[in-house]
Order: sequence, then structure tokens, then C-alpha cells
Amino acid sequence: MAKSPESEHPIKAYGYAARDTSGVLSPLTFSRRATGDKDVRFKVLYCGICHSDLHFIKNEWGVTTYPITPGHEIVGIVTEVGSKVEKFKVGDKVGVGCIVGSCNSCESCAKDLESYCPKQILTYGYIDHDGTRTYGGYSDHMVADEHFVLRWPENLPLDSGAPLLCAGITTYSPLRHFGLDKPGVKVGVVGLGGLGHAAVKFAKAFGAEVTVFSTTPAKKQEAVEGLKADHFIVSKDQKQMQSAASTLDGIIDTVSASHSIAPLLNALKPDGKLVLVGAPEKSFDLAAFSLITGRKMVAGSATGGLKETQEMLDFAAKHGITADIELIPIDYVNTAMGRMLKSDVKYRFVIDVANSLKAP
Amino acid sequence: MAKSPESEHPIKAYGYAARDTSGVLSPLTFSRRATGDKDVRFKVLYCGICHSDLHFIKNEWGVTTYPITPGHEIVGIVTEVGSKVEKFKVGDKVGVGCIVGSCNSCESCAKDLESYCPKQILTYGYIDHDGTRTYGGYSDHMVADEHFVLRWPENLPLDSGAPLLCAGITTYSPLRHFGLDKPGVKVGVVGLGGLGHAAVKFAKAFGAEVTVFSTTPAKKQEAVEGLKADHFIVSKDQKQMQSAASTLDGIIDTVSASHSIAPLLNALKPDGKLVLVGAPEKSFDLAAFSLITGRKMVAGSATGGLKETQEMLDFAAKHGITADIELIPIDYVNTAMGRMLKSDVKYRFVIDVANSLKAP
Repeated sequence: MAKSPESEHPIKAYGYAARDTSGVLSPLTFSRRATGDKDVRFKVLYCGICHSDLHFIKNEWGVTTYPITPGHEIVGIVTEVGSKVEKFKVGDKVGVGCIVGSCNSCESCAKDLESYCPKQILTYGYIDHDGTRTYGGYSDHMVADEHFVLRWPENLPLDSGAPLLCAGITTYSPLRHFGLDKPGVKVGVVGLGGLGHAAVKFAKAFGAEVTVFSTTPAKKQEAVEGLKADHFIVSKDQKQMQSAASTLDGIIDTVSASHSIAPLLNALKPDGKLVLVGAPEKSFDLAAFSLITGRKMVAGSATGGLKETQEMLDFAAKHGITADIELIPIDYVNTAMGRMLKSDVKYRFVIDVANSLKAP
Repeated sequence: MAKSPESEHPIKAYGYAARDTSGVLSPLTFSRRATGDKDVRFKVLYCGICHSDLHFIKNEWGVTTYPITPGHEIVGIVTEVGSKVEKFKVGDKVGVGCIVGSCNSCESCAKDLESYCPKQILTYGYIDHDGTRTYGGYSDHMVADEHFVLRWPENLPLDSGAPLLCAGITTYSPLRHFGLDKPGVKVGVVGLGGLGHAAVKFAKAFGAEVTVFSTTPAKKQEAVEGLKADHFIVSKDQKQMQSAASTLDGIIDTVSASHSIAPLLNALKPDGKLVLVGAPEKSFDLAAFSLITGRKMVAGSATGGLKETQEMLDFAAKHGITADIELIPIDYVNTAMGRMLKSDVKYRFVIDVANSLKAP
């Protein structure tokens, strides 16, 4: 019989977990492996709340096993390193994002694209190399192979920097990969939430001219004044959408609610790129002509590899980019999930783990 | 009142035209403009029959005005050149493909991508710069601005080379643009008709490893033995499709009948590209996850610019690439359309215009 989460490993750990599809999080005691040769152990200081956390704890993607401890925007301070660890020492500030393992032998791994490795191990709710389950950052501490641990830049805030580990890299990576990272490039950002506001900040830092698309007219002020977007378009307003026809080199679409991509494709210039980073449950309707007539494309993009994630953190530190956050104690997490579902957060909740998670 | 097709220009012309949505073609007398300074006039020798011709003559895309004379795979011999023509002289062999005009001032035109110019003038059924309608190559002669006329390579056959002007460039261009033109690259071709067989020939000439997808098991022999494809997969066979999962760098999808793209996306490696060159009437269902998990993309591609079309013809001549054709007299054209609709042609009908079109 398999051992319990509490006894399968030698090191005690505790955090918050969901036990069923209600998605309600409550305290859990479990265990983590001893520090292996290449492992870094660190005390969790802050952990961002990503919309994926909610999908996972409610089993909305059908892959959840309970109990599940979410959290993949994790910042902490190193408490122990394995004998063969080269990049880190005790006391270093570090981050862990969405993945903690990969096969290290496929084409994607060879190209530093671990996030596309078919055998990638997600930071929580996945089966680790040793057959035990992974637990995320809504917990007192983490242990991970140093390859999947990021150096935290000295001048990057720990709390408001945490969301960069998912929301940041998920928008930075496609901006870079699809050539939307150059001065003067015209970039659209659809949806102004956790991912969207990070996309605007990175695109502006690259020198792009940014148009925000939102269904909510009231977001114009925050987009243009707060985030320095150059243009704001109410995506439900056909006249405004038509005025944007054939103007953009690329669009990062962060919306995971059902919506139509036809008006977005219409807003692209020839050779324009629509990149989906949100994943609505319902399929999109895609008309071949909407692509063919302008050699346009629809792509998807997940997070990013470790090398690129480090590059993103360093870029963010250099350009003063952080997430706009609301810092919360961990016992507020269920309320925060409810508010996030109503988009009632600007733009990311971050859990002040070290100051609010009590030992059992 | 606008003048009639027969009297609006000074030069008599004749050909075959459809008069209504029945799409039946019959002889028509009309007129063409006098040779302008930059114009090339040529006698039509051969003209390929493209599936688009059928869509247009039946008004299946809702943009047809009658009478319409189709044909945009046109090869001929120059009979007159304007005073400022630099590239051609009387007696030269030439070709005209899908477009005969563009704005010459947009971003696409500046990048030699006239086929994405929003003001492009198609070879038939469009309004020309002078406000009169364009007539295609099912006719005795053509006149076009030299910019839109291709030099015919000396050793490229005139009849079997004609389909390269649409079917050829439509497959050559995306193979080149999307990086599927390198030795060892793994390329899928969906559908083995006019476009598909050209895609296989070009991909093989680039050194790619080619997999043909077809709904028709009987096409295996022609694909593998006839066209030297490396693999053949019956796209209706789930087991065969699953065995191809994550194997391809790119796919050229030439099918214009309704079909699912999900199994094709599944056949792509991470960063794989599905390029649509056929345009089914019905929209595709596109699941965001099918792109996101592998940073895959769906793109569309039209024909190609003039510079690239010339490059394609020169490449075809060098590598001995022509279309497999069935040469027909022009009074067989209605029968040919019916057979094309049933895919009963390997792989392209070409009209022997000069030897079969009789003066009225």
C-alpha cells in the first residue's frame, strides 16, 4: 500500500490543500523528500494565486487528485542545499514557477524549453520522478532540483515579483518568441487581469505600442493611465473593433472565458500573430479565410523554459517590472479565490506565507 | 451607362465564360485594353483549371459578377510590349498567375508580398485600375503590367508548368516562409489533389521527409511510388493518426472540404506549424489547449508575391518539377469541371487553349 502524504517522506511539511471539488482550502500536514544531491530546500516567503490554482482545486480540467496543495508563483529563501548544488547557497533568495521536473532528453529539453517537454512535472498535483505527488507553494517550504530553481535578482521585490513566475513568463515568453519585443511593434493585449497587466508592462518595456482590449469600458483609465497602454478598445464595441482593423503585428490573448477570435484576427496586419495564453473550455470557431487572406496565424504559448524564466526575472529587475498585487494572509485564501473568480483583484493576490501560515 | 465587355476596350478578345451560377462555360467575345507603356500583351497557349475557378463561376464565395472568364494559371508568348517595358520582348515565353495588380504603396507591396495587398487585383472577376473588369486565361490573349508577368524558364514545359502559377506557388510559398524547406524537416501534406501533389514535389525537392495524409487508402501507391512521399497515413484511421503523434515539424493542409484539424495538430511536434491553404466553407473547431501545450500554430497562406513566384518557377525548372496534368481542349472544360469536383483527375486539368479555342 502506498504511504500517506504525511509519512511518505522524512521531512514534515504543512500548508493549505483542497480535499474535494468544492475547492475549499484548509490546513494540511504532509511531507517532503530529504534534500538530494542536486536539491535546493527553501522556506516559502510569498506565493501568488494563479487562476490555474482554482481550475486545479476544483478539478475543472479533470486531472486533479486530492488532496492538492496549489501554488506555482513561489518565492523563498534557501535553507539547505545538496552536495552537488552549484548555483545556490543557504540564505539565497530563490523562486520556483510552474514546473519542477522534465525528462532532460527530448528535443524540447535540449532547447531549454522544459515547459514543452511531454514528461514535464508540474509544481503541484503531478507525479514526481520518485512516484510521489508534488505539492505547491501554499506551504511552509519547498524542495526542488536546482535546475528548476531561479536566482532572485537583488532588487526585485519578493512579494510583487512572485507572480512573474507564472503570469510574467507566460506573457514575456510569447512576446519574445513571436517577435513582439521590438520598439514600435504594435501589440494588442486582450483581457486586463493577472496575465494581461503583465503583458502590457513587458510590451511597454520592449518599446511596443500597446492596445488593450477589454469587455469592460471602466478599465480604460487603469489601462491608459495606470499601465501606460497607448490605446484602449472596448472589445464588445463593433465600431471600435472595426477601427482597429489591420493595425496590429501581434496580440496576446489572456482571456480564458469563451470569446470570439474572429474580430481579433481582423485587427491583425498581414503576417500578424494571435497568441493564446488563456484556455477557454469551449473551442474557438476558426474560419480558414480569416488566416489565409493575410498569412495570419493563431498560436498558443504555455509558460517558458527555465533559462528564459531567469532572463525574464533579470529583465523585470532591470526595468522595474513587478505585478500589481494585493497581499493577503493565507487564511484569506478562500475569500480571495471567490474574488478572483469575479475579477475583483488588481491584478494578483499574493499570499504572505511566512507571516501567516501557522505550524499545526 | 457603362460600356459592354465587348466594346469597353479597343482590342477584341474571346474566350469562355460563365453567365450565371449554373457555372456552365460557353464562348464569349469581349475586349481588352490597348497595350499601355508598362504592359505586356501575350497570346495564351495553356491555362490550368484551378478549383477556385469552379468556386468563382458558381459564385460559391458570393463575390462573382457575370459574365466571368476564369483562369489564373496562364502561360503564353509575348506579341507586343509597351514602350517602357524592360523585362520582356516579343516572342518571350511568359506566365501570369493569380494577380494582375496591387496598390504598390502598402507594407505588403513594399515587402514583395503583393498577394497580401488589400487592394490586389485578381486575374479575373475583379475591378482593374481603370474600373473595368478583369478576364482570365480561358481566352485567346492577355494584357498585364509587366510587374505581374513572370519570365518562363527555358527548360520548364509550358503545359505541365502552367499549374505552378497557382498550385505551385500556393504550396512553395508556405513551405519556404514557415521554414519547411530544409533537408530532414518532417512535413505533412493533407490531401493529394492539385495543390497536394505540388506540395509533395516541392517538399521532396527541399529534402524534407514527407508524410501524405489522405482519406483515400487507394492513394497510398501514387503517393509513395508516384510522388516519392516517405510515408502515407489514412487520415480516417485513428490508429494510424495516433502513431503519427508529435512527429511533424509542419503540415500543409490543402483540403477545402470540411474536416477536423485536431488530429493534425496532434501530429505536430512542439513548435509545429499547421498551414491552411485550402479554405473549407465551415469553420474549424480550435481548442486552445491543442496549441498551448506545444506552442503550436495554425496559419493560413495565400499564393505568393511576384518575386517569390519567379523564384519558384526558376526552382521548379532547376529541379524538374512540373504538375501531373491531363491536357484537354477548351470545349471539354465543363466536363472537366464535373470530374474535378469528384477528384477524378491526376492532378490538374490544363486547357490547350491555343490549339482548341476557335475565333468566333
